[in-house]
Amino acid sequence: MSEMLPPGGTIGILGGGQLGRMLAVAASRLGLKVRIYADGPDSPAAQFAEEAMIGAYDDEAKIAEFGQGVDVVTCEFENVSAGALDAAAKGARVAPPARAFAITQDRLLEKQFVQELGISVAPFAQVDTAEDLRAALETLGTPALLKTRRFGYDGKGQVVVRKPGDAEAAMEEIGNQPAILEGFVKFDREVSVVVARALDGTLGFYDVAENHHQDGILSSSRVPASIDGDCTYNAREIAGKIATALEHVGVLCVEMFHCEGERNALVVNEIAPRVHNSGHWTIDGCQASQFENHIRAIAGWPLGPTGRHSNAVMINLIGHDVDRWAELAADERVALHLYGKADTRPGRKMGHYTKISPKSG
Amino acid sequence: MSEMLPPGGTIGILGGGQLGRMLAVAASRLGLKVRIYADGPDSPAAQFAEEAMIGAYDDEAKIAEFGQGVDVVTCEFENVSAGALDAAAKGARVAPPARAFAITQDRLLEKQFVQELGISVAPFAQVDTAEDLRAALETLGTPALLKTRRFGYDGKGQVVVRKPGDAEAAMEEIGNQPAILEGFVKFDREVSVVVARALDGTLGFYDVAENHHQDGILSSSRVPASIDGDCTYNAREIAGKIATALEHVGVLCVEMFHCEGERNALVVNEIAPRVHNSGHWTIDGCQASQFENHIRAIAGWPLGPTGRHSNAVMINLIGHDVDRWAELAADERVALHLYGKADTRPGRKMGHYTKISPKSG
Repeated sequence: MSEMLPPGGTIGILGGGQLGRMLAVAASRLGLKVRIYADGPDSPAAQFAEEAMIGAYDDEAKIAEFGQGVDVVTCEFENVSAGALDAAAKGARVAPPARAFAITQDRLLEKQFVQELGISVAPFAQVDTAEDLRAALETLGTPALLKTRRFGYDGKGQVVVRKPGDAEAAMEEIGNQPAILEGFVKFDREVSVVVARALDGTLGFYDVAENHHQDGILSSSRVPASIDGDCTYNAREIAGKIATALEHVGVLCVEMFHCEGERNALVVNEIAPRVHNSGHWTIDGCQASQFENHIRAIAGWPLGPTGRHSNAVMINLIGHDVDRWAELAADERVALHLYGKADTRPGRKMGHYTKISPKSG
Repeated sequence: MSEMLPPGGTIGILGGGQLGRMLAVAASRLGLKVRIYADGPDSPAAQFAEEAMIGAYDDEAKIAEFGQGVDVVTCEFENVSAGALDAAAKGARVAPPARAFAITQDRLLEKQFVQELGISVAPFAQVDTAEDLRAALETLGTPALLKTRRFGYDGKGQVVVRKPGDAEAAMEEIGNQPAILEGFVKFDREVSVVVARALDGTLGFYDVAENHHQDGILSSSRVPASIDGDCTYNAREIAGKIATALEHVGVLCVEMFHCEGERNALVVNEIAPRVHNSGHWTIDGCQASQFENHIRAIAGWPLGPTGRHSNAVMINLIGHDVDRWAELAADERVALHLYGKADTRPGRKMGHYTKISPKSG
């Protein structure tokens, strides 16, 4: 108990997007204060925080100053540099730990890490040159996915390679950065598990969500997922193993491919060491949302309940989807969430809505 | 639809307490911005708003300035002067309307108003002098309750008069202010209905809550209340009639006495023209809380669903009750809400928690 940040304490959030905004709301319920560090003014998160500091995410001096003014520093995105986290740690406890970021922000390290835990991943190979790529294509076959090791999200930084002759062009397309090649996995559905890990190592699992992507961006998540009880157990087992091995503190999301009829039906695709879009349904479907449990975990509090009181289908409002806001606001069957972003741009996550129905499954 | 305040619009809230804070959270979900007007720094609401203006609640020039910077002005407490509301209305739409405040902030006008709607109230008499009081005590009998007409809340501004000879002392105790005398009502339980009324007059009713008070302060609210279906219907009917007759826009709460075995089993005790403590359970028990529906109504949006997905018992944390925060945070069966107040004082509402269980009744 002695490590619990008492009410009135301050959480510092690196990142000003919608995840930071929803984390701020969760902190407000628990009597904690919030400061936001964002790289521009009028960010979604800063709109609901008493104080916001504006600075670059690589301005270590400024981030050190930010850390001085808060009790715990956390992140709403994973591509925070080790230097920035070290700077923040001079003034405050940092959670999740730097190690969780270091591994998950590098696709090669992440895949190796998961594999070493005895968990299935897509076949992969390290690719630094076009020559590496040609060799990897021979082993893994075509088509295959070439992905930069770092800074990829929402389908960015990746390209499908269809034949060995395309190797050079593909490397150019991703800017000749250090990369990995991934073999295609034949899957029937994508699922994810949001797990919270408390400071004392306790785990709390949300229900497995079934996800659909469009153009590399999550479009919907539904609970319950159409998978059986064994598979649900295994999906949670995998997420828990990963969170524990990373010595993670806070919420973490593991995206997996579900391969019907395979002996090891679940293949880990990606780890996000933070609250995740596929867990937004927990705001309306659970007593304690993923945002509340992230705040609880990093504040050293015990986790809140992760049980689901309703069925939920979360649908992202991407780009001009959000123009439907008035129609959605009039639909009693949905809970509407808008992120307060001034500019509507294609591919930008502007909000989401959750279809709620009585619990089953 | 043309009257709907679009996302990105700004709600101005007069009052910086926990109700304003929870309204700000609700506005954030809907993509609306919030500005707070409070009479001191570091208020619970200002902690979660981008901008807060500090000023007195009777500083009409400052409130007029506040109104200029927002789209809609609302209040988190009922004792706002007509002058302040008029000042705010120079720059923004004001909701609820001034009339709802004018009537409900005066116990005499409120009782007369309810009675004229054909709804039962406790027997009452206008009392301006000790002589009036003696005459009223003769008609209504003893003991009876002497209450100031204005500025009473949480049991303040009222005194029990036990015999006619106490008239002068009683008047002195309430500062010889204009008052009413209320006869005692023999009731078996207290209930309340939170109703939302949209700009177009549509009504949305939450389930009837059963309330317990201690020392004049609400201590708990539970849903479902132990009353039958007829009575539930009647309680909602009364609340709807009142909201409609006031031409209210936003959330309103009607507190009633339930008198077992009487022909008119429900007697209206008090109207609060705002979100109400006895509706806090809606945050954890409903898809759209009273706070969301207040924001929707004043923003000209259609109401969200008022249905309940869980049973709930809301318990206030008053004064040093809040010292139990760590124990409550560890109890998986409750949702904890803390208001971010720095000073714990006896009688001060510091937070609440809601016991959640699967829906019944």
